[in-house]
Formats: sequence, C-alpha cells, structure tokens
Amino acid sequence: MRYISEFREGEMVRDIYLCKSVQTLTAKTGKNYMSVKLQDKTGLIDGKIWELNNGIGHFETLDYILIDAQVQSFQGAPQLNIKRVRKADEGEYDLSDYMPVTDKDVEKMYKELIALCDSVGNMNYHRLLRSFFAEDPDFIAEFKRHSAAKSVHHGFVGGLLEHTLSVAKLCDYIAGAYPVINRDLLITSAIFHDVGKIHELSFFPENDYTDDGNLLGHIFMGAEMVGRKMDEMGTFSDVEKNQLKHCILAHHGELEFGSPKKPALVEALALSMADNLDAKMESFRELFLSNEAAGYEWLGYQKLFESNVRKTRK
Amino acid sequence: MRYISEFREGEMVRDIYLCKSVQTLTAKTGKNYMSVKLQDKTGLIDGKIWELNNGIGHFETLDYILIDAQVQSFQGAPQLNIKRVRKADEGEYDLSDYMPVTDKDVEKMYKELIALCDSVGNMNYHRLLRSFFAEDPDFIAEFKRHSAAKSVHHGFVGGLLEHTLSVAKLCDYIAGAYPVINRDLLITSAIFHDVGKIHELSFFPENDYTDDGNLLGHIFMGAEMVGRKMDEMGTFSDVEKNQLKHCILAHHGELEFGSPKKPALVEALALSMADNLDAKMESFRELFLSNEAAGYEWLGYQKLFESNVRKTRK
Amino acid sequence: MRYISEFREGEMVRDIYLCKSVQTLTAKTGKNYMSVKLQDKTGLIDGKIWELNNGIGHFETLDYILIDAQVQSFQGAPQLNIKRVRKADEGEYDLSDYMPVTDKDVEKMYKELIALCDSVGNMNYHRLLRSFFAEDPDFIAEFKRHSAAKSVHHGFVGGLLEHTLSVAKLCDYIAGAYPVINRDLLITSAIFHDVGKIHELSFFPENDYTDDGNLLGHIFMGAEMVGRKMDEMGTFSDVEKNQLKHCILAHHGELEFGSPKKPALVEALALSMADNLDAKMESFRELFLSNEAAGYEWLGYQKLFESNVRKTRK
Amino acid sequence: MRYISEFREGEMVRDIYLCKSVQTLTAKTGKNYMSVKLQDKTGLIDGKIWELNNGIGHFETLDYILIDAQVQSFQGAPQLNIKRVRKADEGEYDLSDYMPVTDKDVEKMYKELIALCDSVGNMNYHRLLRSFFAEDPDFIAEFKRHSAAKSVHHGFVGGLLEHTLSVAKLCDYIAGAYPVINRDLLITSAIFHDVGKIHELSFFPENDYTDDGNLLGHIFMGAEMVGRKMDEMGTFSDVEKNQLKHCILAHHGELEFGSPKKPALVEALALSMADNLDAKMESFRELFLSNEAAGYEWLGYQKLFESNVRKTRK
Amino acid sequence: MRYISEFREGEMVRDIYLCKSVQTLTAKTGKNYMSVKLQDKTGLIDGKIWELNNGIGHFETLDYILIDAQVQSFQGAPQLNIKRVRKADEGEYDLSDYMPVTDKDVEKMYKELIALCDSVGNMNYHRLLRSFFAEDPDFIAEFKRHSAAKSVHHGFVGGLLEHTLSVAKLCDYIAGAYPVINRDLLITSAIFHDVGKIHELSFFPENDYTDDGNLLGHIFMGAEMVGRKMDEMGTFSDVEKNQLKHCILAHHGELEFGSPKKPALVEALALSMADNLDAKMESFRELFLSNEAAGYEWLGYQKLFESNVRKTRK
Amino acid sequence: MRYISEFREGEMVRDIYLCKSVQTLTAKTGKNYMSVKLQDKTGLIDGKIWELNNGIGHFETLDYILIDAQVQSFQGAPQLNIKRVRKADEGEYDLSDYMPVTDKDVEKMYKELIALCDSVGNMNYHRLLRSFFAEDPDFIAEFKRHSAAKSVHHGFVGGLLEHTLSVAKLCDYIAGAYPVINRDLLITSAIFHDVGKIHELSFFPENDYTDDGNLLGHIFMGAEMVGRKMDEMGTFSDVEKNQLKHCILAHHGELEFGSPKKPALVEALALSMADNLDAKMESFRELFLSNEAAGYEWLGYQKLFESNVRKTRK
Repeated sequence: MRYISEFREGEMVRDIYLCKSVQTLTAKTGKNYMSVKLQDKTGLIDGKIWELNNGIGHFETLDYILIDAQVQSFQGAPQLNIKRVRKADEGEYDLSDYMPVTDKDVEKMYKELIALCDSVGNMNYHRLLRSFFAEDPDFIAEFKRHSAAKSVHHGFVGGLLEHTLSVAKLCDYIAGAYPVINRDLLITSAIFHDVGKIHELSFFPENDYTDDGNLLGHIFMGAEMVGRKMDEMGTFSDVEKNQLKHCILAHHGELEFGSPKKPALVEALALSMADNLDAKMESFRELFLSNEAAGYEWLGYQKLFESNVRKTRK
Repeated sequence: MRYISEFREGEMVRDIYLCKSVQTLTAKTGKNYMSVKLQDKTGLIDGKIWELNNGIGHFETLDYILIDAQVQSFQGAPQLNIKRVRKADEGEYDLSDYMPVTDKDVEKMYKELIALCDSVGNMNYHRLLRSFFAEDPDFIAEFKRHSAAKSVHHGFVGGLLEHTLSVAKLCDYIAGAYPVINRDLLITSAIFHDVGKIHELSFFPENDYTDDGNLLGHIFMGAEMVGRKMDEMGTFSDVEKNQLKHCILAHHGELEFGSPKKPALVEALALSMADNLDAKMESFRELFLSNEAAGYEWLGYQKLFESNVRKTRK
Repeated sequence: MRYISEFREGEMVRDIYLCKSVQTLTAKTGKNYMSVKLQDKTGLIDGKIWELNNGIGHFETLDYILIDAQVQSFQGAPQLNIKRVRKADEGEYDLSDYMPVTDKDVEKMYKELIALCDSVGNMNYHRLLRSFFAEDPDFIAEFKRHSAAKSVHHGFVGGLLEHTLSVAKLCDYIAGAYPVINRDLLITSAIFHDVGKIHELSFFPENDYTDDGNLLGHIFMGAEMVGRKMDEMGTFSDVEKNQLKHCILAHHGELEFGSPKKPALVEALALSMADNLDAKMESFRELFLSNEAAGYEWLGYQKLFESNVRKTRK
Repeated sequence: MRYISEFREGEMVRDIYLCKSVQTLTAKTGKNYMSVKLQDKTGLIDGKIWELNNGIGHFETLDYILIDAQVQSFQGAPQLNIKRVRKADEGEYDLSDYMPVTDKDVEKMYKELIALCDSVGNMNYHRLLRSFFAEDPDFIAEFKRHSAAKSVHHGFVGGLLEHTLSVAKLCDYIAGAYPVINRDLLITSAIFHDVGKIHELSFFPENDYTDDGNLLGHIFMGAEMVGRKMDEMGTFSDVEKNQLKHCILAHHGELEFGSPKKPALVEALALSMADNLDAKMESFRELFLSNEAAGYEWLGYQKLFESNVRKTRK
Repeated sequence: MRYISEFREGEMVRDIYLCKSVQTLTAKTGKNYMSVKLQDKTGLIDGKIWELNNGIGHFETLDYILIDAQVQSFQGAPQLNIKRVRKADEGEYDLSDYMPVTDKDVEKMYKELIALCDSVGNMNYHRLLRSFFAEDPDFIAEFKRHSAAKSVHHGFVGGLLEHTLSVAKLCDYIAGAYPVINRDLLITSAIFHDVGKIHELSFFPENDYTDDGNLLGHIFMGAEMVGRKMDEMGTFSDVEKNQLKHCILAHHGELEFGSPKKPALVEALALSMADNLDAKMESFRELFLSNEAAGYEWLGYQKLFESNVRKTRK
Repeated sequence: MRYISEFREGEMVRDIYLCKSVQTLTAKTGKNYMSVKLQDKTGLIDGKIWELNNGIGHFETLDYILIDAQVQSFQGAPQLNIKRVRKADEGEYDLSDYMPVTDKDVEKMYKELIALCDSVGNMNYHRLLRSFFAEDPDFIAEFKRHSAAKSVHHGFVGGLLEHTLSVAKLCDYIAGAYPVINRDLLITSAIFHDVGKIHELSFFPENDYTDDGNLLGHIFMGAEMVGRKMDEMGTFSDVEKNQLKHCILAHHGELEFGSPKKPALVEALALSMADNLDAKMESFRELFLSNEAAGYEWLGYQKLFESNVRKTRK
C-alpha cells in the first residue's frame, strides 16, 4: 500500500483510504465541488474533487474509498486532486493499515501482563485479575486493541495495553525499592487503573469520547467495574475492596486532574506518580517522532511540558 | 436536664453527660488526676477529677456518666470540678439530649420529601426514588437520623434530611423559573445528591469519617449506590442512567472540590449551585447562632466566607 | 422583512440592513471593491460590492442601507454579492428589526418589578426604589431597553430588565426559604445590583463598553448612583446606606471577578449566588439556542462552563 | 515619662498608661484578680492586679490610668504587678505619648505635599487638590493625624501623610523619568490614592476598621469622595473625572487585592507600583525596627515577603 | 534609504533589505514562485517573486538583498511584487538600517552608567563593576549593542544598556528615599542584574534565544559570571559575594517568574520592583508607538497588562 | 546509653545528652530556674533545673552534658527534673548517639554509587563523576555524612547519600525502560542533583540552613559547582556542559518549587519525577515511623500529601 506519509508532489495515487470527512461546497464561480479528508495509519491529507462526473461514486464519512488522484501542493501543503472514486468492498483492504497502532508485539505484552497478574500473592486480588485478564475473552480482546487516549499519549491501537504494562512494570520496580509498599495492592491497582477507558473511548477508527466517557469518566467507571466484580465474587474483605477502589479513584493524583480523592495510601500515591511518569516519557517519544525532521532544534513552547523543549543532543 | 450551655459559675451539677474523652495525667506534685471532656447537645465542657477516691467509678470514652460536680472558672472559661462519677444505665438518659439535632420536625420534612418524589413524572426515576425513600425502611430510618457533615453545615441529627429537602425545594423553584431545565432529572438528582453520606460518616455520637468515607467519599459512593439500583431494576435507558449519575458525580461543581467531572448538563450545574447556596445560608445561620452574644459585632475573618462577617443590622 | 437567518443560497434580496462596518480594499488585479458587514436581529452576514458604479450610493458604518444583492456561498458560508446600495430614510425601517431583543413582554416584566419594589417594607428603601423605577421616566425608559452585556448572557434589548427581575424573584424565594435573610435589604439590592450597567454599556446598535465602563465599571458606578441618591434623600441611617452599597459592591462574589469587597453580609452572599445562577441558566439557554441544529450532540469545550457540554436528552 | 520599652525587671513604675483592655478573672483558688493590657507609644505590656482592695479605683477599656506597679518577668516576658490604680484626669497626660507616631516632622511633610499640589498644571486638578489639602481645615487636621493601616505598614499617627507624600515623590521621579506619563494625572491621583482611609479606619487610640471600612473599603470611598467633589465643582470634563477616579480605583493593581478594575492607563499602573514599593520598603524598616536585637540574624519566614528575610550585612 | 514603514501603494522600490525568510512554493496552476519576508529597522513586509527568470539571483535567509519591486496591496496589507533580486555586497549597506535600535544616545547612556559605577563606595564592588564595564572592551562592546529581549520590552540594539541604566537610576532614587537601603549593594546589583542576557540572546539580526539561554537562562548565567569574577579577584568577603549573587538571582521577584529564590534582602526586593516598573513603563511606550494611529482609542485586551488599555487623554 | 525514646516516668537517668538550647527564667515567686532542651538520636526532651546550686556546672547550647535527673510527666508529656549537670569531655560520648542517622550501611551505599558512576559511558561525565566521588576525599567524607534536609525527608546523617543513590537507581530503571532517554546524562545528573546541599545545610548537630543556603540555595550552588569543575577540566563540549547544568537547575520540576527553568529535556523531566517519587516514598516511611503506635489509624490531614493518610492494612 502507498502510505500518505510517503506521497510526493506530482505522483499519481491509486489506492484505498479511510474517508474521515466529506463536504460538498460551492466555488465562487457557482460550481459545486467536494472536499474530503483521507486517513491511513501514517497521517491525514486533504483532497478536492473538482469534477463531479460519473467517475465519482457515492460515499460517506467513515467509508473506505478507492481513489485515482494526483498529489499536488497547495499553500505549501500536499493535497490530492481526485479524479475517480468508488467505495471499497470489505475484503479489499486491511483495517490495520488505517489506524495508528503500537509498534510493540501485542501478544508478547499480554504475556508479560499475565505474568505480573500471576505474581500477585493475595488470592482475592489474583482471582480478580484473572477473572478479567485471563478468563474473559471479550474483555481481553477489547483491552488488547483499545487506545489509551483520544489524542495525547498512547492514542493508538494497543495503547491501553502498552501503557498499562509499562506502568505495572514501573510499579514492580517501586515495590522492590521501597519496603513501605504493599506490592499486591500496587500491582493490582496498576493493572486496573485505566480499565474504565474501555467504556470512555469508542474503538478505532472513531476513537472518540462516548456519552459515558463524557458524563462519568474512566476513573469512576473503572472503580465501579472493579467494585462490582469484587462484590459478585463475594470473598473480599471491606479493606481489600476499599483500598483497591481508592487506588483507582486517586490515580490522577490531584483533584483538579479528576480524581475525586487525593491519594491517602502510599500505594495510591506511587501509582499516580508511575502513571504520570509513563505518560510523560511516552509524550516526549511521540513529540520527537512527529518532529523527526527537526532533529536537535527547539520545538517551541509545548503546553504539556510548559516549556520550550528539544531532543537531547548526543 | 441541666444543659451545659446553661451552667453558671459556682453552681452544683448532678446529671448525666456523654464522655467524649478521658485521660489520666500526673500533676507537678506527682499526684494523678483525670481530665475529661463532657458533651450534651448544647455543647462541650472540660472537667477535672482531682481526687481519685472510691467515689469515682470506672468509665471510658463514649460512656454516659452521672456526675456530681461544681462549675468553676479556669482562665475565663467554665470547668467542672468533679467529685463523684458513675456510669449511667441505658434507661437513665435520653440519647436525644446528647446530640445536636435539627430544630425542624423530621416527620414533616420526610412527608415533604416524599411529596417531591411523587411529583417526578418519569416513571423510572419515580420508582427509583420510592425504592429508597418509600420502600426501604432501614434506609429511611438511617436517612432521617444522619447528619450531613462532621463539623460544618448541617452537622446534626436530621441534618442530611433537612439539607436534602432544602436543596430539592430550591431546585423545584429553579425548574419552574428556567424552562431549559428537565425537572424530573433535577429533582431526582437533588434528592439523591448526598445519599452517599450515609456511608461516609458514622452515626452520632461518633459522627466521624468512616474508612469508606476517607478512601472513596460520598460522591463516588452515592453514584455507585444509585447506579447499582438502576441496573438491578433493569428498566432504565443508558441516558437515564448516565445523566442521573453524572448529576450526582458533578454536584460539587468543581474538580478541586472533589467532583470527578465538571457539570456538563444544565441540571448538574443547577444542582451544584443550589447545594452550595443552601450550605452557605445554613453556615451563616450556624455562625450567628454560635455567636449570639456578639449581636451586630464583626465576627473576625471567617475562612469559609473569606471575609470578616457580621450579622445584618435591622 | 427578509431576515438574515433565513437567506438561502441563490436567492435575490432587496431589503434594508444595518451596516456594522465598511471598508474599501484593492484586489490583486488592482481594482477596488468594498467589503461590508450587515446585521439584523437574527444575525450578521458578509457582503462584497465588486462593481463601484453609480448604483452604489454613499454610506457609512452604522447607517441603515437598502441593498439589491444575491446570496452566494463562499468557503461554505453565505455571502452577499451586492449590486445596488442606497442609504435608507428614517421612516423606512423599524429599529426593532435590527437588534436582538428579549422574547419576553417588557411591560409585563416591568409590572412584576414594580410589584417587587412595592413589597419592600422598609420605608427608605421603598422610596429609594420608587424614585428610580416608578418616578424617573428617563431612567425607566433606559432601563427597559438596555442590555445586560456586550456579548455573554442577556446581551439584548430588554436584557437588563429581564435579568434584574429574574434575580430579584430568585432572591424573593431565598428570603422566604431562609429566615436568616433580611428580605428588604436583599430585594432592594437585587433590584439595584446591575443598575450601573446603564452607564457601562452604550445603547444598541452599538452596545459596547463606554469610557466610563472601561475605567470605572458598573459595580462602582451602581454603588455611587445609589449612594448619591440616598444622600440626597437625606432620611437614611448610616446602616441603611452602607449595607445596601455593600451588597451592590460585593455582588460579583469574588475579588477576582471585580468586586472590591467579598460578601460580608448574608444578603450580599445570597445576591451574588442568585446573580451567578441566573447568568449561568441564561447562558445555557443561549448556547443551546445558537446550536439548535446540534440537538443532543456534544458542543465541545465551553470556556464559560469549563467543560464539554450537551443538551439534556429527554 | 517612663516608656514601656524601657522597663527593667524589678523596678517600680508610677506613671500614666492607656488601658487597651481589662478583664476580671478567677484564679484556681477561687479568688478574683484583674488582667489588663497597657499601652504607650513604645509598646504594650500585660499587667495583673492580684489584690482588689480599695487602692484599685474603677476604670475601663480606653481609659488613661495612673498606676503603681513593679516590673516582673513571667515566662521570659515582662509583666506588671499592679498595686494601685486610679483614672487619670485629662490634663495629666499628653495624648502623643500613647500612640505610635511618625518620627518625621508633620508640618514639614505637609509643606512638601502642598508644594507638590501646587506643581500640578491642570487647573481643575490643582483646584481640586487645594480644595481638600489647602482649604478644608477639618480635612487637613484629620489627614495629618491619621494612620495608613491598622497593623501593617505606616500604622501610626501621621502615617497616612508620610505614606502619601512618599508615594507622590516617587511618582514625581517616575513622571520625570518616563515621558509616556501624564504628570498632572499621576501626581493628583498619588496624593488622593488613600484618602478614603480617613473613613476606613477610626482614629487613634482605637485605630480599627469602621463599619464603612469593612463594608465599603477605602478604595471605593476615596473614588466616591473625589468624584463627588469634582461634580460639585462643575468644571471638570468627563475625561478628567473618569481618568482620576480610575487611578484611585485601580491603585491596588490587582483585582484580588481589592481594586475593582485593573490599571488601564499607564498612570494607574505607575501609581499602583509606587504604592506597593513604598509599602514594602516601610514594611522592611518596621520589621527590622521590631527585631533590632536580632541584628543580622535571619528573622524566619515572613508571610508578607513569602521568604525568610534578614537585615543586609554591611 | 527608503524605509519599509514609508512604502506607499503603487510606488517602485529599489533598495537593499534584510531577508528574514525565503520559501519556494507552487501555485495552483503548478507554477513555482518565491515568497520572502524582508526587514529593515522600521518593520517587516511580505514579498512575492512570481517570475523566476534570470533577473533573480541566488540568495538565502539572513542575506542582504538588493531588490527592484512594486508596492501593492493584498487583503488590505502592503506587499512587494519583486521583479529583480541580487545579493548585496558588504560595503553596500549599513547594518544599523536593518535592526531596531534605541532612540537614545548610546555613548551618553554609557557615560551615565560609568558615573553610577564610580559612585559606589564599597571598594570591592567598585573594582568589580569597573572590571566589566570600564576595563573589558569586548564586554563593553557587546553590552552596548545587545537587546534586552527577544520580543517584549527593550527588544532592540542598545536595549540592554538603556534598560540597565534606567533601572539603576530608579534604584539610585530609591536608595536616596529609603535609608533602610544599602546603596552600594543596590546600585551594583542593578547594574549587573541582566548581564546574563549577553549569553541568553544572540545578537541582531537574529536576536533569538541561544541554547544556553533556553537551558540555563540569564538569571543563572548572570549570577555565575559575577560569582566567578569575584572568586578570581579574591578580595571579596563571603557576605559581599552571596548578597550580590542573591540580588541577581532574586531579581524576578517571584519563583514563578524564574527566580530560584524570593528576595530575602531589602535591596533584592527593591531591585525586583525597579526592574518590573521600568519594564512596564517601556512596554506601555512600545504599545502606544505600535498603535500610534489608534490615538486615544481602546487597544483591546493586552495580555501583559491583563486589561483593555488606552492612551491617557490629555 | 539510655535513649530518650525509652525514658519511663519515675526512673532516674544518669547519662550524657546534647544540649539544644538553654535559658534562665524567673518563676512567679521571683526565683530563677533553668529550662533546657536535650537531644539524642532518638528524640528531644524538655528539662528543668529548679535548684541552681553548685551541683550545676556551667554549660551552653550545643554542649554535651552529663546529667542526673528524674523523668516526670508534665501536662501529659515527659520532662526531666535535673538535679546535677556537668559538661562532658570529648572522649566520654560517641557523636553518633546524638544525631539521627540512616539505618542503611553507608559504605555499601557508597560502593553502589561508585558502581553507577563507573557505568557511565561518556568519558567526560565519567571523569567528572570520579573527580568528585572517587578522587576528592574531603568531598567524599562530607557527602557521606550530610543530611538531605533540615526537617522533611532524609533529614539524617547519611541522608544525602541514601537519597542520591535511591534516585540514581530509579533513574537507571527509567533509562532501561524508555529508549528515548540518554542514560549517561540521566545517571550523571541524578548523582549530582543535590550536591549543592553540602553548602546549603550545615552539618549535624546544627543541620540548619547556612547563609549561602538561604541566599543562593542548593539548586544554584550545585549547578555552579559542577559547571566550574567542567570548565576547569576543559574537555567538555558546550552541549555536555549546558545539558548537565540544565538537568540540575530543573530538577525541582516547577518554577514555584525553586527551579529557575522548567525541564526542557526529557532527562531533566525524568530526574525531577524520580527525585519527587523518592522523596514522597521516604516521607511516607518517616511518617509511619513517627506514628508507629497509631497502627492503621488515620493520621489526620498531612500538609505534604494534602490528604488525611493512613498506613495500608494488610
């Protein structure tokens, strides 16, 4: 497949892309034309259909379309001049070409996560983890392909798994380094901390906030999901229940970041700091990736880091 | 009964009080004495037992004790010099004398609340309200005698009911004045907004944060309680569920006040403002009450109001 | 009259509009053309005059002009291609067609306000209210047609009256619900709270901040106006004067919102909360109105509410 | 007179002091005694009257009393053991001995201020200044003996004049250094900026916030006073009026410091910075004075400066 | 020379300008053209080279180029239609025409600064000042032509000297007015306060943050430079060293403005306030200058002043 | 030795303690007595010397004194009634008994730190680390016995080493987990990050802020120390210098925590988060230690954590 990031001015393109939006507009001259946004996993590009003749088949937003087009340059940015369009059939394209996706091995990550689950000594927490991550095939499938964000860090297929594993491994280090930590509680809450995101964000290609996501948020939904399962299993003490739910509720660390409680247990604080550290490291990685051409140049003020930032020179 | 607020210097007291705390201490001279704090519904007083002879029976914190004592003045404040003590038997005292209690009629307030429940037209919300407030005797009993706070506004028996009713009535006015409001949603969420406080605070005479209260908070617990019941009842649409839960979650209005979501619906915003207004009016009432002697004098900087405040002169 | 909000692409328009701005520009080709913004009470539209021939009469900003034009579409937005223009004469148009205006009955609202004035028992406050709202025809006329804002809530003819009445009625409810409130002070200050806006904003069609508005603000000017009248009337006690002026000064509730004093009286606090509640309810109404097509869709992050918001689903 | 700051342990004192407070208390033994606070311009001291015999005449708070007492030390601090008391007659003492007072020459400062008034070229502002500072003997007398604060900087007799003059002279420098400044406006507003303090604080020896001070504040009252006089004089343009009133309203520089408007004119900003600088320099002077013994030691965290501070070593 | 600020539509221009940026773009028609930004000390202008024929010599960003062009108007703004270009030779132009430059006399300012240096009585500080400002020709040359900012106040050649002198003179006034000040420390730290800007910003025409500027900042670098020189000179007491370095470190006044320490000495506080006052006065001057046409109109919300601002009417 | 934490009421003590403070006071009766504070590594205790006879030898603050005393209880807290005192001779006591000290093995920690130094591949950074930590015996000795704080986390002998090693090991984990990190820069800056504390805090037993500490702070001093050594060594590139100094300057993460620059490099951000995490984990450990008796009780609002906190129940 010809990826959008590789388009060169002047070349002819004939391939299938995901239509993110489509509008019919009127030019000054009174003539109608169509303006579309096309997407694959490497990026987005604008396209224009100037001649609405019968080479242009019907299609709508979120359809996959086969196009014949030329790559042009408009105000310094590439743009497609589209001559022919038709909706593609389901077998003609591979979904994974159209969504950003983790560059790590999903199955390998999943195995690492299961190993961490199995390292939890508290029998109740261990059974709880397995009930979701080892014994619920629907949940497992969803968890593996979910992103962890609409736009910021880990906003790609597999991002939720990648972020969860990375936080859990950092927590494993912390539990080893600081004896004050209850490892079972910390590992369990790390693995569950963002589980509510499954209901907060819709799947790709949409990957947008759901109604539940906007109104309730993943923090509440995660604690509610885990709490309900613990009640169903019936073997948990009150302390096992409220300590785990607390860690999930408090994992954003500050009220103004949406946690209804500040961390009151050392594990809740450790989890919130591990979560934050992983998010920031990944954000730096993604920032450099999307500015690869800049090399060691300053990238301007970055709101997330509240600073002008730069790749470290070797 | 002789209430603490009415003690006069020099008088002899013989009555039963709740012992809030007791300590045995050693004087400079090396002699032991006991220091106690006694409480009834009108206030707190310090007492000393200088002579630990056999007129002093055994008692502990949260016991009700019968004392013989003289009211003295120490550094300008009244203090009891206790001569004799014994634990009181259960039939000898009336619990209601020892806890601050609403000065309104609980049954009358409860009837008003039920009338508001019955004014809700949405059948699902109506049944939900009745399942708690009309059909669950344990819940009703608890709700009627709970306080709404450990120390600030409505921190007395019946305070949760009084505050809930007052907020719901204000919301009723708002729903009438602003057609943009969905009355059913607003009234229902007003009645449920602080329901989680039943698990956040223990009952009087302790009236302190529970483990669940400290770790999870009434906002989360209220939304979880109501959410679980809606799921059990099985007749609610997703929208009915998430809109109601949102209003409960967002009722503190700001993330920094412990709501995990800012109000995203007009009813959620109206509820948060009604809740805040009722809390502030009651706080002024309680402040003036506890400073009745001050009359129209300035009461000094009040942290809650971020201002020096004064009773309005007529 | 043909309202701007009803224009359809392609149709010919011949009607009178208010010219909000006009500029003469030069095209790339070196030819001059004119760019105008036209307004009526339903909205704004851009227009271009490509041919500066003698069908184009002289006109200036804030003139009412009769145009012959065609509705076209430019970059997805409607635009007028204007062929002929002349200034309209005063009798040819009705001012009320050109300004946003309350959809409530002004005289009915005024009567309700007078009734509230007459419900104030304190003789001094009652006479003070009547001296402005019942006995000063110029003031009454101005008050009735003023807006309450440049752009945010109640920014239309009659908005000041509508907002004032709505706040005063809410305060009436509060005074009834909370015995701690001095009703006369609260109602009087509610009716006067935004009276300084008469000098802060110029009248429609301009409706912009005046020099006095920018330099002094309606809070100061309102308290000064009311204070001066009380001094002239000569019958007020110091307490009647400073308590009323305080409520006006403190009605924004927080120093950072422009009140030079935080509320120090319970009536001042109640007024500030009632003012805020009315403003927020109206802001939601206006937001939904200007997004009617969106229905129950999320409207994106709204700075005023610091949240993504949505109309409540029924 | 024997000043409080010069008392030495063990010495006998027989002199007149201002009684700031007096209370009758009961000792553990049941015996009554009196506790008083005495003040002169050099400080405050506690005193006890252990024997309430007929050498102790009647007196009340804010009386000047003649005492016979011995200086003792209690918990490291000096304390008076008072044997005899009687109320002093008016001729027996000099008020200036009992209040903190500027160490500068009041008449010399006043002359400097008048010279600054007379340097203002704008005829209206010049006449306005003279109407207060040169032609109103009551105002002049009050202005000369007022303090500028209850407790912080310039909280002494003559403090308002000293601070006003110091700010006006700094503004004179600024007007000379920065041509962007309108000198007449800056000097006039500097001289008037704190004039409302005459009504915000009561006179010595009380020197406390008045009702008007608490409810309205000196910022509002100053702008109102000056505004009313300008209206009475009748010769001012709107611009002369609102620019001067703006500078007074905005002189605290920030909304959160009680200005209802942020500085919108360069003179308003310059005035607010000059006011702040003078306040901070005087606060340092007073801090060092009250910690003279500390020499070049660190004085601990000072809330006003948000830092641990120290006198600069030479 | 023909300055950019004086260009009139239609005129032909033949002169040398600094090329701030140059890009080759493709028009819709597929034809290439060049877009440039040209600068002289009076401003910036866009230019287009539509015909890339052999009248167009090679040039790059930051070259000085001789152009033949016509002044046109595009969307209301002037634009150059460039016909011929060649790189200019070094002798053909005068650098001072191409950079914004102080309108004060540099040599006169420098003499004033030296006089202030020589007024410092502390021998160590005096020698330290002279070692930089009187005895180090390279430093002197750099200091004279440096700007004090990338964009905000004093962002022009000579700006660093102008700002430094202005702050030092204000500090001289302060030292005279407030005896609590140690004049030698204040004057010395005022003269050194922004010396680190020499390494924080590159020279004109670039005038941008350096790597050191972004990573270390002028506050750290200034304190380090002065500290190292004091250590080399070897005659300073610890107190002379740490008090001077503290004043430099604390001169932004607040941690959130980049000072690693809040002012702990009165001189550090005075310096920070003088620095701020000079910056604000100059910012007002520059704001009015760049809005000269606006006259006494309101200039809209200015982020720096957090207010809508206006030139003061006379 | 008999440690203070083990004192029991009534027992006689005869041992040597560090005198933290001593004052002579006068009792109500006019009699002089002495009040002292004594310290060992387990805590502080108050003592009184009621009889100033010749059994009481001369001693001063920070002397080590041999006392004969009885443990009594005053207002619920233990207090020493001291009968005899003499200054102890240097050989009579072991300094390590009088200061809080790390419970880890200093030499083992030092070896781990050296191993981390030796794992740095960049030759310049490696030599720089060794020049301090392997080749400068004075520095090594100081670094080993310094605390990392006056009062909060790691405020004990060896605390600086313990904290530094713990942060460096966490950074080692991070460098392994996130390929975006330059390990050499991160490990080097982690080891140097708090090196300025050697000059910010005086040694035990004083362990208080020095003049340099108050005026300059450890952030500036650390960056200056490392910068100077790099300049002396002469082999560093500009990038090696400013990147390392930046990481030290930015290690508090936020301007309001005293860093003059926000992290602009990913290593600077990682270091600041690792530093914070280690500080918080240690603070929890110390909090639980000092509240061991509380067990799993809530410990009340903890300012550092902005929450009521509790030890996690197993």
